[in-house]
Amino acid sequence: MKKDKVKKKVSNAVIKRLPKYYKCISKLIDCGIEKISSNDLSDRMKITPSQIRQDLNNFGCFGTQGYGYELKFLLYEIEKILGLDRKYNMILVGYGNLGKALIDYKEFKRKGFEFKGIFDINKEIINSEVNGIKIYDMSEMESFMEENKIDIVVLTVPKEVVNKIYLEVLKYEIKGVWNYTQEELEPLNGIKVEQVHLMESLMMLSYKVNE
Amino acid sequence: MKKDKVKKKVSNAVIKRLPKYYKCISKLIDCGIEKISSNDLSDRMKITPSQIRQDLNNFGCFGTQGYGYELKFLLYEIEKILGLDRKYNMILVGYGNLGKALIDYKEFKRKGFEFKGIFDINKEIINSEVNGIKIYDMSEMESFMEENKIDIVVLTVPKEVVNKIYLEVLKYEIKGVWNYTQEELEPLNGIKVEQVHLMESLMMLSYKVNE
Repeated sequence: MKKDKVKKKVSNAVIKRLPKYYKCISKLIDCGIEKISSNDLSDRMKITPSQIRQDLNNFGCFGTQGYGYELKFLLYEIEKILGLDRKYNMILVGYGNLGKALIDYKEFKRKGFEFKGIFDINKEIINSEVNGIKIYDMSEMESFMEENKIDIVVLTVPKEVVNKIYLEVLKYEIKGVWNYTQEELEPLNGIKVEQVHLMESLMMLSYKVNE
Repeated sequence: MKKDKVKKKVSNAVIKRLPKYYKCISKLIDCGIEKISSNDLSDRMKITPSQIRQDLNNFGCFGTQGYGYELKFLLYEIEKILGLDRKYNMILVGYGNLGKALIDYKEFKRKGFEFKGIFDINKEIINSEVNGIKIYDMSEMESFMEENKIDIVVLTVPKEVVNKIYLEVLKYEIKGVWNYTQEELEPLNGIKVEQVHLMESLMMLSYKVNE
């Protein structure tokens, strides 16, 4: 109950920093480090110590004066907030080059995000398997979704068919869409959408380059 | 001179919203719309009207009461700030699935970001061409860089070789690195780095899904 209360106050900017905390803290734990001061964490994260204290206080992670933060506890709390304390079943729609790259990306499964099926329209690859994941025809989606509990749909289809596929996907009991297409999708039916904006990222680089 | 002064005050959060303004405003212009009020822009961007006014005031784009913003002028100003008023030559290092997807992404060239060469170590593809772009052996990079003015290096290589390639790339007179690898790269020698964090994006989705 306390956690819910805390969660509501947390700003978007803080939430967006959480994966960076997660990454940094995981690395420290992998190196056998057990605790860290906000100053040391500040050096690594390139965030001011006071910002770090503020951020982490949001989640009830209060460091101890002269001792610092217990890393495993911190990681555990961040995992809970980010929803990384559970598993997600995913399907990929669109097995082009980008789709292939995502299927080959080992990190997803390690973090609990597992591809359970691939959907495409290319008859030549349908019914084959990649990394143990079967490729289905688009027309099989409905029956697949009935038989499998899918949380996340990853969209790497051409721009032209995104909306059609999104409409189909909205029919199923999924929780989120990870959208790699250039078409912006509106969250509907309680389904959350996370957009990957490659062009925006490149624009941020051209901004930095001209700063 | 005035612009420089203005630029320094602009916060990171505002800068990160600029590509979204750019996208939204481009779309409006494509639809033949010439001006917009901050209220209408607010509806489309899902940002409060006062935030929009604040953001755009940063760049000297003051809307006129009862008239709104002149879209072409706004776009022109945002393009200048983002560095989109010039062209960038890029090379891709690592022609795997992700590299292939990026080479096929037409939007980059449309926005002024053009791939001039691809580098890989796979002998079977070296000297061939994709979309009119030649694939070179990694050993040819030095001579290629001497002959071509490259602004941006796009890294889609395996994690294990990133640091080695980054060290090589730092020798050349490039301006930025667009890093798709899981290895965090530190900006060095005045070279700016923009990191693409696929895992972070997926974590944001799992956060939303559990909100």
